[in-house]
Amino acid sequence: MKEAAQRFQVRFENLNREASCIEGETIFQSARRAGIRVVGACGGRGVCGTCMVRVHSGEFHTPETETGTATPRRRKWMRACQLHPQGDCVVEVAPRSVARVVRADVDGESAAPFAFDPIVQMHELALGEPTLAQATADADRALQALRRDSTASVDLYALRELPALLRHHHWKLRAASRGEELIAFTPCGQRVLGLAVDLGTTNCAGYLLDLDTGQRLNGLGIENPQASYGADLVSRLSYAITSQEHRLELRSAAVTAVNELGRTLCEAVSASPEDIVDVTLCGNTAMHHLLLGLPVRQLGRAPYVPAVCEALDIKARDLGIVCAPGAYAHAMPNVGGYVGGDHVAALLATEKRWRDATTVVMDIGTNTEISLVHAGEISTVSCPSGPALEGGHISGGMRAAEGAIERVFLEEGRIAVKTIGHGDPVGLCGSGVLDAIAVLLEARIIDRRGRIGHDHGTVRIQGDHREVVIAPDVVLSQSDVRAVQLAKAAIRSGVDLLLREAGLEEAAIERMVIAGAFGTYIRVESAIAIGLLPALPLERFEQVGNAAGLGVRMVLASASARERARQLARRCRYLQLGSLPGFQKAFLGRIGFD
Amino acid sequence: MKEAAQRFQVRFENLNREASCIEGETIFQSARRAGIRVVGACGGRGVCGTCMVRVHSGEFHTPETETGTATPRRRKWMRACQLHPQGDCVVEVAPRSVARVVRADVDGESAAPFAFDPIVQMHELALGEPTLAQATADADRALQALRRDSTASVDLYALRELPALLRHHHWKLRAASRGEELIAFTPCGQRVLGLAVDLGTTNCAGYLLDLDTGQRLNGLGIENPQASYGADLVSRLSYAITSQEHRLELRSAAVTAVNELGRTLCEAVSASPEDIVDVTLCGNTAMHHLLLGLPVRQLGRAPYVPAVCEALDIKARDLGIVCAPGAYAHAMPNVGGYVGGDHVAALLATEKRWRDATTVVMDIGTNTEISLVHAGEISTVSCPSGPALEGGHISGGMRAAEGAIERVFLEEGRIAVKTIGHGDPVGLCGSGVLDAIAVLLEARIIDRRGRIGHDHGTVRIQGDHREVVIAPDVVLSQSDVRAVQLAKAAIRSGVDLLLREAGLEEAAIERMVIAGAFGTYIRVESAIAIGLLPALPLERFEQVGNAAGLGVRMVLASASARERARQLARRCRYLQLGSLPGFQKAFLGRIGFD
Repeated sequence: MKEAAQRFQVRFENLNREASCIEGETIFQSARRAGIRVVGACGGRGVCGTCMVRVHSGEFHTPETETGTATPRRRKWMRACQLHPQGDCVVEVAPRSVARVVRADVDGESAAPFAFDPIVQMHELALGEPTLAQATADADRALQALRRDSTASVDLYALRELPALLRHHHWKLRAASRGEELIAFTPCGQRVLGLAVDLGTTNCAGYLLDLDTGQRLNGLGIENPQASYGADLVSRLSYAITSQEHRLELRSAAVTAVNELGRTLCEAVSASPEDIVDVTLCGNTAMHHLLLGLPVRQLGRAPYVPAVCEALDIKARDLGIVCAPGAYAHAMPNVGGYVGGDHVAALLATEKRWRDATTVVMDIGTNTEISLVHAGEISTVSCPSGPALEGGHISGGMRAAEGAIERVFLEEGRIAVKTIGHGDPVGLCGSGVLDAIAVLLEARIIDRRGRIGHDHGTVRIQGDHREVVIAPDVVLSQSDVRAVQLAKAAIRSGVDLLLREAGLEEAAIERMVIAGAFGTYIRVESAIAIGLLPALPLERFEQVGNAAGLGVRMVLASASARERARQLARRCRYLQLGSLPGFQKAFLGRIGFD
Repeated sequence: MKEAAQRFQVRFENLNREASCIEGETIFQSARRAGIRVVGACGGRGVCGTCMVRVHSGEFHTPETETGTATPRRRKWMRACQLHPQGDCVVEVAPRSVARVVRADVDGESAAPFAFDPIVQMHELALGEPTLAQATADADRALQALRRDSTASVDLYALRELPALLRHHHWKLRAASRGEELIAFTPCGQRVLGLAVDLGTTNCAGYLLDLDTGQRLNGLGIENPQASYGADLVSRLSYAITSQEHRLELRSAAVTAVNELGRTLCEAVSASPEDIVDVTLCGNTAMHHLLLGLPVRQLGRAPYVPAVCEALDIKARDLGIVCAPGAYAHAMPNVGGYVGGDHVAALLATEKRWRDATTVVMDIGTNTEISLVHAGEISTVSCPSGPALEGGHISGGMRAAEGAIERVFLEEGRIAVKTIGHGDPVGLCGSGVLDAIAVLLEARIIDRRGRIGHDHGTVRIQGDHREVVIAPDVVLSQSDVRAVQLAKAAIRSGVDLLLREAGLEEAAIERMVIAGAFGTYIRVESAIAIGLLPALPLERFEQVGNAAGLGVRMVLASASARERARQLARRCRYLQLGSLPGFQKAFLGRIGFD
């Protein structure tokens, strides 16, 4: 007889949460099962070191002591994905490993250039009570009352609710139509809502709109629950293609994000997700495919072909999204394998900035999408910039959360920092990483080739590599600097090649639109100093915040914006960076800091 | 501690099946759980006596001996819904209680007046292999290759399969489109199929069409699995409105019927249900609502308002129908609360018969739908005729199966019978019941008021009522005669009132179209003799078989037939029999046999 596996209680002291850990599981796995969000950039494979915990009490195995049992002698930070509890234990999650949400709700500009003309229209419905002599079917009477033509129809799920609603509300209701279809019925006087979601690799932003008025009710950012399957897209795609179950896990995580945004946003305005009658979604192509349950195998390997780029209108229920019974979800169009609807949304939201000028529109992230608009043409590339610029895969890196160093500067020749929330520094977020490198270059602590020098008080040797102490407990290592070099070389060579394809010089760029959360907080001077951005006059740079979030709200509020987004996506000439001649050379030419 | 309920083995000897019976269950319930189809017209409430079994061995409780245990002393027929096994037992199901399927696939006429123009169109698709420089998304290329305009789209579920199919079949596929939507992709050379289903209260008929050629591949009739919840619609509606679970049970039974037809029909032609790219459905309004999961509470009580009458096009997956991923199911339009899409289908199929003549189109069943076509107007009523005419709720009644008496006649003054399959008579099916009464009237064994006389050798007294012995073991009781009187009075008074509303006399009926399985097998002379049908010259009667089955096939094969059916449904003026003045009087005037 096989004995039942033992279970231990793991208490996450500083989060005030508990999880039940099945014998053999790691602390990371038990946290994930319990929905306790410990950052795990590599998905628990033990390679990234972002899931650090300290064991306060209890026994555990580690891979190094597999056959024995080790009790922690001193409280040192260890990777949660390598700790197998052997009994009940109490742990503390390192501040930088707590998946918290700060600043994800970056708003971008709010002036929408499109009129409020939502695709879902509301109608008042007042029917008489039926009699034996006049017993026309409920739905038929509703359609007649709304003078819909004979091709009009009622969604099956909305129809299932109609008879009881009509009778309960004394034959008066509001009907939501989308084209010729009635998709929902609601009591009179009840607000109808729209949900727009920008599904980012790292963070997901959601916005709730009042679809009667177009008013923005609120917004919220949460961490993408897929993060525990890997910080970068490649990790997640690799996971997804190993089995159908894995793909479903990632899909379910993405759906959870959308539903959590919907639920929380509605709760905050005393509404219910069932009041949502329209949903718009944008994300990069991989997130789009994972959310929609589309296969990603062909997307993950050359020639990186998406299943679909055109916009899709799908019954939200077919995606598992909780909202009004017959509501649709509109998935914004993608441009190509690595440029998704979020970039289209950013282009849509910033159109007035690029319409009349030679402009680079750039959204810096794990993948950085760049469009060059010139003479009516839009050329677009995606650069695999990795998570380094967002503080990921960096030894002292962390999200833009409480305690993150967001500014680094020289004060009387010494490195000084400013943290989010002004508390003790616990790590470096993206803008802090950029600043740090710019400062270290300026102070010549690192040279033009990216090498950390040895003749400076803040530099120390760890094993066979050097690191710079930025603040107590926060260092920037040689490999961190290398990661940033790779990221900025990818982005910069992307810009180079777009310019070359268009036959332009850098100076021809009249505007440089930097979209996205990361781009909002960087100091452009630092980005220029390390060569991430071209050295243009500062007034040509425009940091516009979460333009994708604005774009996905625009297509929610306006049918014509939705049509415009379709056109923009089709207009983009998608270039695969790797297939462009001279890419290798351009990339290598941008590795150094000169 | 509560002990686990005991389980007994029940062997259904003559069916060669076994069921596990949980302590406390009846034999009927265990048979239903095991999918062994014992007829149970009242749903196991112990009132109809259609679930007869004989216990060969084993102990059981009956309600009469609740506190003790009874072993059958002699093998007598007992109701399976009243027998609670107390141990393993062996039973024999009475031949007339075996839910078998014979003759359900009544075909009707086959000459379709509509051209073959199915709503689903097939296209050949041949794409080149994508490259890094030409990595357009799979779906976008498919739409481009088919030159679909920019509003065209691909169904999400079909899209999920597309990338793997394209690569597996070397970039050559067939695409199925419905309007501007691609709904399925299949390998080249593979047949695509359509399924048409006439979902009757008692029997469900399914037909498989080759949608490339319009050829009818095969047809099949099965018993409606809802039958175990009650033979008549009122029983099922009562059951459905008691709880959400009950409604789901009935819905699931209806879906099972459609899927079983699809699976069996496909198997027979070595195809798979996934090859079905279009489904059409018809049924009475209650069956329609139960299958679609629409609420029936408001349908079951005055003023009997349907949720919808207009035709619906629904993703088949939303109904749980197994077929191609993006296929639609078309639910034919209803006319009113008690006249459904099956009658519309019958009108569609028989249009050439009634177009130019004053015609009554009638489908006799548990509910009998009657339309009077006169001077371009169609008036329609539904008559609650009950199951008696189909052999239900009749003491010796049974389905039209092996051993059923289908003809009764006088041979040298004595009652003689003919059975289906020419074997020993085990019961009376519908046409036999009509014949029997006509013969008994002729022989004056029953009088014009329906009373069984006492001065005839075939009449015997059982308790306080009389019965006529039609054959050894098959009798017709006084209450059976009464049930037939009620049924024929309902139908005949329906015809009377339609004529009155149109200002016509009976003789004005130029054609009398009798549709449906029952109507096909009756002797019109007998029906006239008992007053079920008006005494018109015999050449005016046309028995057309399962016209509804033909109609639902026509809308599968032809988009214009589908449109025509919509028009017909809207043209029908639906009259509620009970709301017509003088109904009561007309009904009572038709109770007798004169």
